[in-house]
Amino acid sequence: MNIEHKYGTTIFRSATDYQPPRTWRAWLIGRPLATADAPHQTIGKIIGLAVFASDALSSTAYATQEILVILALAGTMAFGYAFPISIAIVALLAIVTLSYEQTIHAYPGGGGAYIVSRDNLGELPAQAAGAALLTDYVLTVAVSISSGVAQVVSAFPELFPYRVYLAVALVLFIMVVNLRGVKESGAIFALPTYFFVAMMLLTVGVGLVRYLTGTLGMVVDPPPLEIVAVQIVTPFLLLHAFSSGTAALTGVEAISNGIPAFKEPRSHNAGITLIWMSAILGTLFLVITFLANRIGAMPSETETVISQLARTVYNSRDWLYLLTIGATTVILIMAANTSFADFPRLSALLAIDGFLPRQFTYRGSRLVFSRGIMALALLASILIIAFSASVTALIPLYAIGVFLSFTLSQGGMAHRWWKIGRLAPGQEKQERGSTLRYEAGWQVKIVINGFGAVCTAIVMFVFAVTKFRDGAWLVLVLMPLLVAGFSLIHRHYRNLARQLSLDDYGAASHIIRHRVILCVSGVHQGSLIALRYARNLSDDVTAVHVSMDPLEAEKVRQKWEMWGDGVRLVILESPYRLFVEPLLQYIEEIASQRQPNEIITVVVPQFVPRRWWHNLLHTQTAMLLRLVLLFKPGVVVTDVAYQVE
Amino acid sequence: MNIEHKYGTTIFRSATDYQPPRTWRAWLIGRPLATADAPHQTIGKIIGLAVFASDALSSTAYATQEILVILALAGTMAFGYAFPISIAIVALLAIVTLSYEQTIHAYPGGGGAYIVSRDNLGELPAQAAGAALLTDYVLTVAVSISSGVAQVVSAFPELFPYRVYLAVALVLFIMVVNLRGVKESGAIFALPTYFFVAMMLLTVGVGLVRYLTGTLGMVVDPPPLEIVAVQIVTPFLLLHAFSSGTAALTGVEAISNGIPAFKEPRSHNAGITLIWMSAILGTLFLVITFLANRIGAMPSETETVISQLARTVYNSRDWLYLLTIGATTVILIMAANTSFADFPRLSALLAIDGFLPRQFTYRGSRLVFSRGIMALALLASILIIAFSASVTALIPLYAIGVFLSFTLSQGGMAHRWWKIGRLAPGQEKQERGSTLRYEAGWQVKIVINGFGAVCTAIVMFVFAVTKFRDGAWLVLVLMPLLVAGFSLIHRHYRNLARQLSLDDYGAASHIIRHRVILCVSGVHQGSLIALRYARNLSDDVTAVHVSMDPLEAEKVRQKWEMWGDGVRLVILESPYRLFVEPLLQYIEEIASQRQPNEIITVVVPQFVPRRWWHNLLHTQTAMLLRLVLLFKPGVVVTDVAYQVE
Repeated sequence: MNIEHKYGTTIFRSATDYQPPRTWRAWLIGRPLATADAPHQTIGKIIGLAVFASDALSSTAYATQEILVILALAGTMAFGYAFPISIAIVALLAIVTLSYEQTIHAYPGGGGAYIVSRDNLGELPAQAAGAALLTDYVLTVAVSISSGVAQVVSAFPELFPYRVYLAVALVLFIMVVNLRGVKESGAIFALPTYFFVAMMLLTVGVGLVRYLTGTLGMVVDPPPLEIVAVQIVTPFLLLHAFSSGTAALTGVEAISNGIPAFKEPRSHNAGITLIWMSAILGTLFLVITFLANRIGAMPSETETVISQLARTVYNSRDWLYLLTIGATTVILIMAANTSFADFPRLSALLAIDGFLPRQFTYRGSRLVFSRGIMALALLASILIIAFSASVTALIPLYAIGVFLSFTLSQGGMAHRWWKIGRLAPGQEKQERGSTLRYEAGWQVKIVINGFGAVCTAIVMFVFAVTKFRDGAWLVLVLMPLLVAGFSLIHRHYRNLARQLSLDDYGAASHIIRHRVILCVSGVHQGSLIALRYARNLSDDVTAVHVSMDPLEAEKVRQKWEMWGDGVRLVILESPYRLFVEPLLQYIEEIASQRQPNEIITVVVPQFVPRRWWHNLLHTQTAMLLRLVLLFKPGVVVTDVAYQVE
Repeated sequence: MNIEHKYGTTIFRSATDYQPPRTWRAWLIGRPLATADAPHQTIGKIIGLAVFASDALSSTAYATQEILVILALAGTMAFGYAFPISIAIVALLAIVTLSYEQTIHAYPGGGGAYIVSRDNLGELPAQAAGAALLTDYVLTVAVSISSGVAQVVSAFPELFPYRVYLAVALVLFIMVVNLRGVKESGAIFALPTYFFVAMMLLTVGVGLVRYLTGTLGMVVDPPPLEIVAVQIVTPFLLLHAFSSGTAALTGVEAISNGIPAFKEPRSHNAGITLIWMSAILGTLFLVITFLANRIGAMPSETETVISQLARTVYNSRDWLYLLTIGATTVILIMAANTSFADFPRLSALLAIDGFLPRQFTYRGSRLVFSRGIMALALLASILIIAFSASVTALIPLYAIGVFLSFTLSQGGMAHRWWKIGRLAPGQEKQERGSTLRYEAGWQVKIVINGFGAVCTAIVMFVFAVTKFRDGAWLVLVLMPLLVAGFSLIHRHYRNLARQLSLDDYGAASHIIRHRVILCVSGVHQGSLIALRYARNLSDDVTAVHVSMDPLEAEKVRQKWEMWGDGVRLVILESPYRLFVEPLLQYIEEIASQRQPNEIITVVVPQFVPRRWWHNLLHTQTAMLLRLVLLFKPGVVVTDVAYQVE
């Protein structure tokens, strides 16, 4: 051990000699990493697209299907509206992309919705953004994994009854991978993302060619339509279908969170990557929706639209079909994995700001925010179980959080441009920890971000209204509760810091009197060890025995006379056979007569057995007493353990 | 408070002035009772029959049906064997009754199977009897409640899907009633028991009259036979059906446990009550089986044989039918209630002897063995849920324990008579805490008890073989495990007593040196309170800070210089961001240099928040550290709490 002395303080450096033990935990998540081992890497555009696009691109796996599910309420004839709706969604995507492109250039250090709202709109909007993002991340995992399992189940229908188990197992698998710590080397991301893009382009390409040459047929044996046509096509229904389709936009914001990971010039590289991603996403989504209509695909819980499309295009369930399904499944898993990077990072950020429990800032043995990772896995699993891994059931909860964070982020940016416009050219200003600097052309930028904010706000409103009864109400209830929770936690930390502060703390007065109360349940070696300790603490020791049985008490009295070393014994009769209450009453009586500089120590002999299950054979009164006495000021609880071999 | 001084010891008597608080618990189970309030009452034969017969008599509600279920395997033609089988069972009942009548006279203080085995056969058979009885009580609750619910469901078929919920709710209801403490006034027992006997006698009486006058028809709309005839009638099948029917004998031993509750002459009164009980039981069982055959009753999960019989006899589902079903349901609930008296009493007895955790001897606020009551309710509920409240599914687990305890009890009695036969007339002998006294006619008695033991042993064997695959194997596995558990627990208590014994304990040496280690996570009011306390304990205080962040450590060092009162500070660097491990390593190093009479106290500042949920916002390192340090000899852990308002 390396020891250093500095101003009278001893510092032990144990970096080199401490060997963490090899446990099952180390086997599962890898050997502990030292703080100094934290990696620092940056990535280029090619890898960056792969790392950050999986969430957004994977939406194409379910967005078309969710539009069709809603249109099916008006019968299969209404499916024709799917393509126009998807054009509207792609237009929205273009607006959001433009808007985020500006954010990326304004926040080269990373401009997630939480940071942008905090810097430009204040604490409450920031908390709302935080709540929206956290729910969004949980739902991304639940929806992506459920959709991934739906793809697998489409290819292997015999797995249908096990889909919830499969989905939860996948979540736990991703959790373990993330607890090990994913090196952001990108290679493991690049392969699946580009493989997915390639497979999808091939599938829709072949599909388009076959359509144009007139050889594209209809789906053979489409799954039966599970929804009964109950209404006619109304504007409400179309807006409802549009809302479902907006799930395609989820994940677009990912790049703006991850700018620091890009190579310099960071903002430039990140911006180009964003535009590429949106272009691929929009194209795939449009063509998939178009082709799904042409082949007469049916929305279904048992076979996904992607599966119907692939087997119709390839005219078989052969290897090209299986590769397409496999690629889709893997990209969906990667999308879930993205949330496993974002959720812990955001919860740590919120915890540092005092809005979430401090524990979320703690880096586990593998330098990852392990509590955030486990919390995410738990919450996503609960959702998957509660909604039976059905994408259609989960979708109504999904996009509200996403669009709330879009709106806040772009609204924040618009406000920022407005403030920048107030500055003189060349002027700089510090505000809420970020630097505002005059920029020419702020007028155009405020319009772009402002228009984006208005559009996404309208979509959010449409979504909340059309999907209110399907489950959106749950999110609308949950979000204010989350924000209220953040505030409560924040208040607690602030109060605590104030109360512990030494700013106006005088010198502590010295302790003048020290009374010791020794709890004696019986006279044996254990209680004598505690007696010896108690006598070392003070000359003023009182042994107390709570008696439920006069015969037993008399035995204790007699034995104490022999072994008690002259220490006075008090017997408390307990007619109701309670142990803690009479003792507490007695201690309270003594504490009430306490002088200002008097302290009372309660010594509790604590029996420590060799095996854990032996604890079940003993009443844990020592522990109970300790829990109760902790709340009494001026009373200290000491456990004197006696280990039994 | 009444204070008494006696040989220098202060005794506080608080019997009169302590007012237990009014809580939801007091509302549910009643205000606490003082130990002095324990009631002592004795009962006569009429009430005695009502109190102790419910378990045995209630067996008639399912025994016939369970015989038919097995016979159905050979088709409805085999139902004709039911009556001869029930005659054999009644013969067995007569043997067991005669045998127990002798036990009652030999054990006026109560002669349950556990006590008789312990006194006459030794520790292992006693443990086997204890295990058998405990499983028997749990199964009595599960079977009686399931059968009671089956009666209700027969009358109200729409409740069928809710039978498991109903059964568990009933178990919890009986648990609460027993936690309140049932006054053994007998009146609440007398009414249902005699009402049941009256209703059953009326039903079978009317049935017999209608049969003799030729007006008794067949069951209208009998439930469909759920069992497919798969085999022919074999001796094995008949023995199998006989085994099921022996469920009728369960509960016969109840009176021998409860002799002390009877008025004097206790044994005489108890004996007569036993004979009356067996006579009623045998008669009802025979006639029910006979009539069930005549009307063509079908064994079924949806309608009990009792229900089929009652509606056929009364030709309707009118009030006489409902009264019969109601009386049957209530007696079955009373039967379950009997186990709620017996199980806690036996588990307390086993705990006093050191075979079960001591907690079972503790009388709760209502003077009942509350832990035993709750354990029974929990175990019975688990069984009910696991077996979907099906009597037929539970029966294979049931009678083995009953017949094992019969065999051990009667075998013990036979052994007792044999030892008595060795004595000279008039001679007395103490053995294993019970008194043996010569009795004339021991030769007859040894034959009766011995024959009873042999018969019940054979039945147990037949039961185990015929029902092995249906579930009896589970009990055959469980019983040895229970006995092994008893032995492990016993060994633990014996070892502990030996280690704590003061028999060869010399005077304790005095503590010479006292080192105090103060854990400091930060320098604030809380840690300064702990520092003040630590300095009062000893002059040898070392403050220790575990550092995960050098900047933070430097801050602590500087603040400590100002506030640390000159106490030396040690900083432990923790490169793996662990808290407990480096601290532990440091304490271990210090403890390893400990002198014989040196003690080390670790003072841990413990933050106590105002609201319980605030604990979730803080890492509970103090608690963790305490748990780990408890295992180190010579190290005492002291929590100095700082309460935050």
